[in-house]
Parts: sequence; structure tokens; C-alpha cells
Amino acid sequence: MKRFKAIVAYDGTRYHGWQLQANATTIQGELEKALYTILRVFTRVHGAGRTDSGVHAVGQTAHFDAVWKTKPQALLRALNAVLPRDIAVSRLEIADSRFHCQLSAKAKTYEYAIYNDEVRAPLSRLYAIHVNRPLDVSAMNEAACVLVGTHDFASYGSPPERGGSTVRRVHSADFVYENGLLRFRITGSGFLRYMVRCIVGTLLRVGLGKISPDGFRRILEARDRDASGPTAPPEGLCLMSVAYENALSVHPEGAELPRIR
Amino acid sequence: MKRFKAIVAYDGTRYHGWQLQANATTIQGELEKALYTILRVFTRVHGAGRTDSGVHAVGQTAHFDAVWKTKPQALLRALNAVLPRDIAVSRLEIADSRFHCQLSAKAKTYEYAIYNDEVRAPLSRLYAIHVNRPLDVSAMNEAACVLVGTHDFASYGSPPERGGSTVRRVHSADFVYENGLLRFRITGSGFLRYMVRCIVGTLLRVGLGKISPDGFRRILEARDRDASGPTAPPEGLCLMSVAYENALSVHPEGAELPRIR
Repeated sequence: MKRFKAIVAYDGTRYHGWQLQANATTIQGELEKALYTILRVFTRVHGAGRTDSGVHAVGQTAHFDAVWKTKPQALLRALNAVLPRDIAVSRLEIADSRFHCQLSAKAKTYEYAIYNDEVRAPLSRLYAIHVNRPLDVSAMNEAACVLVGTHDFASYGSPPERGGSTVRRVHSADFVYENGLLRFRITGSGFLRYMVRCIVGTLLRVGLGKISPDGFRRILEARDRDASGPTAPPEGLCLMSVAYENALSVHPEGAELPRIR
Repeated sequence: MKRFKAIVAYDGTRYHGWQLQANATTIQGELEKALYTILRVFTRVHGAGRTDSGVHAVGQTAHFDAVWKTKPQALLRALNAVLPRDIAVSRLEIADSRFHCQLSAKAKTYEYAIYNDEVRAPLSRLYAIHVNRPLDVSAMNEAACVLVGTHDFASYGSPPERGGSTVRRVHSADFVYENGLLRFRITGSGFLRYMVRCIVGTLLRVGLGKISPDGFRRILEARDRDASGPTAPPEGLCLMSVAYENALSVHPEGAELPRIR
């Protein structure tokens, strides 16, 4: 038995998010189905971030344990041959047996894409939201600076479990123009459910002049879910990467692998 | 009656191309339907390039004649409110009454996008083709140079009408890397049907080492449809822009418009 670390990319449009559901198609479900097709044994796939319905990923990270006698590259090819066209495993490596994609994660980076023009752009519509009124990007960036650091993000989400913490550390958060799209990039130790989309929804209100950067600071300080703006739609969001300590995520011997069971 | 010049963008995925068809959904058909909804009179829409089934556009150019008492911007907004999400009019202007989007066109630019990596990319799959073997881009660019100039492109397409000419002038043709995609950009006086896709299909064979740049030159010189490579799939192709002499395409008086009927 070896532990595999997989980088997974997907177009979330037609999926009910990452996490397995009884009567809906999910990314986790499709990956477990593909592994069953290849290995003929049920294989649990763990994901680093439980992306919501309609959210995309280029750098989702997963892990699973499997008996596989040949090179990881052969399993990667088999998976991509079996998976639907809107999901792909872009990288597959043997990891240390202690590697856990969620618990070992040091940081995650998300991007939220906005097409800001009077007229909508059909070729961007699946991966960016359209905002037709002009946005004050410098005000949005001024407000985004408030997010950086360790804060209680209770205004932007609920704890994952009852009584859990809503404190998270944000390493960076800013807007950049890239290839005709305005992209909000945020890196942090972890994120509450809907946190990025709720932050973007509130920052858009800053961009439209409805909230000042200082008002944005007060919303964060309020630690009140009702203080923040609307949750931005899912199609603009993409999980870009999950960062780990290299020593743990990739086994130094490569093909020479530890037995974990 | 005024003549309108429209820049049209569309995701061609679910359409049977630009041109009106009896039992299939087309871009021209959707535009004429939208104009009928707004104007309550049948309006013929002419297009500069008859893009094929599955081909995209960001700069398709169209023209139509309509009675419209207010600003073009109001008609643009009405059109975009009525059109399906995968079609948009990005610009609408009053043109000279002699302007004809197809006959007045001086040049057209197409792009063909290729994702060249061992593993496919789900978020590019609708707008780029996936080539999993390494491509020799410098050999492809060397071959592409052969296309520049005035040539008989009979190896890459049939004349639009019986006995018509297959001579076209290509102004530029090259491959560039941009945002993780390899893009073939070609600008020319006009293109035969399937010409760009057939050129790309043949250039890919150069990139894979199956045809030399000199062999590519001989294919062009053969003036024989059977000499060229396979036609590349439609989803990689996008009509980027159509160029006109400014004087003709935009009426100098703007809102002060000529009567054309």
C-alpha cells in the first residue's frame, strides 16, 4: 500500500462541489469511481479543500492509499483516461505515509475572477462573473489590505464545527488585472466555508462605492455574519494551489516507497 | 433606416456555426431572433465571416439595417438583455450606408489555441485543443512563414463558389505562447472554408516531426486538397477581429446618420 498525492484540476460547472453526496455528482465521487474502475477496490479519496458547488480548481490536492506495482505516471494516465473531460489529475506522486492533504496543508491560494465591462463576455462567462458598473480597484485593494494578518473572520463565515474557531491567518490578498480580467488573489492558512466568496461580495460593494475601505474594516471587526455583504457567485472562484512542507508531501526516495499498512 | 455595424462575441460550443439553418441553432439566427423581439420586424443580419459549427468569436463583425430612434447604446443594451448568455454584442455603431461587413472587410484575424502538455486541462477544454506530445514550435513557426504573402491556397480549401479563386493574401502567421497556451495567429485578406483549421492540422504534423518545414512548403505548392494534413477540431478556433477602412465603417457624424432607404 502506498500513499499517493494528487493535484486535481476541474471545471466545477456541472458538479455539486468536491464532497461526496448520495444523489448528486461530485468531484470526490468521480475520482473514487475512476479509482474503482482501475483498481477494482473501493478507495477513499481525501481532498484538501471542500470546494462548493460550481467552484473550479486547478490545484486541488488530494491523497489516497492504493496498491500499485508500477510507476505513478501509469496510474495518472489510467485515471485521466477514465475521468470525465472536466476533471483531470495533473500530477501524481508517492508521498510520505504521514502526508495528509488537509491536515498537512500549510496554506491555500484561491483566485476570484471578475470581468468588469459594460457588456458581458461570452467566452469568460463560465469562469468569471460579470460586473457591468465601473469598479474602484484601488479602494478594493485598500480594503483587501485589512484582511492580511491573523483575524477572527466570524463576519465572513461559520466555524467548521460547533464551537470551533473562526480565527484564520491571511498571508496576502489583492486584486490584479490579468488578460482582461480583474483577479482577486488570496492566500491563507485556511478558509471558512463561503469565506472567499463572502469577502469578494463585500469587496465588490467597496468597489461600487457603497462601503468605504474603513467601513470594510469595521465589518471585519464586528465579527458578525450579518455585517458582511452578499456571497459572490461560485463560478468566479478557483482553488489555485495548496502548499505543504516539501519533506512531507513528496517521499524523498521517489519510487522507493514506504509501506503504510 | 440606419445601417448598424455590430461587433459580436460568442461561445460557439452549442451552435451550428454562424449561418442560418432551417433546423439548427445558429449565431445569425439568434441575432435575427433578438432583433425581431426588440424591433417587431424581421431584420436580416449579415456577418463578415461564416464561422463553422463549434468555432468561437470575440470580434465577429455584422451589419443590419433598422429603424431606431434613440442611441445605438440603447439598442446594444436591449440586444444583450435578449440574447442567450453565450452570445453578446460588444459594440454597436452607426455605419456609413455603403458599409458592408463582408464586402468592405480588408483583413481578418483568427487565433487557434493549443494546450500542449502531457495531461489535459479541464478549464481550457472548451476553447483550446489538447496535444499531449511535445511540439517543436520553432519548426512550426518556420513552416508558418511559408504562408505569408499571396498564394494559391487550394491545398487548404475549396473556392467559395464553383470556379472561384483560391488565391488569398496572408499578412502574418505565427505561434506565440500566452498564458499557458500555444496560440497560432493568422491575419489575411480572407480565408477559404476550413482553411485555418486545415493549416493548423498540417502545422501540428510539422510540430510532431512528421512533416519538415520544407515538406510544408511543398504541400502549399502542390495546390491539392489531398496534400494537406487533417482539419484541426473547431473548438480551438476563434475569430478575433475584422479590419475595415475607418472612414467607411463608422459614420463620421455618429448619431447624425444617413438615410439608406
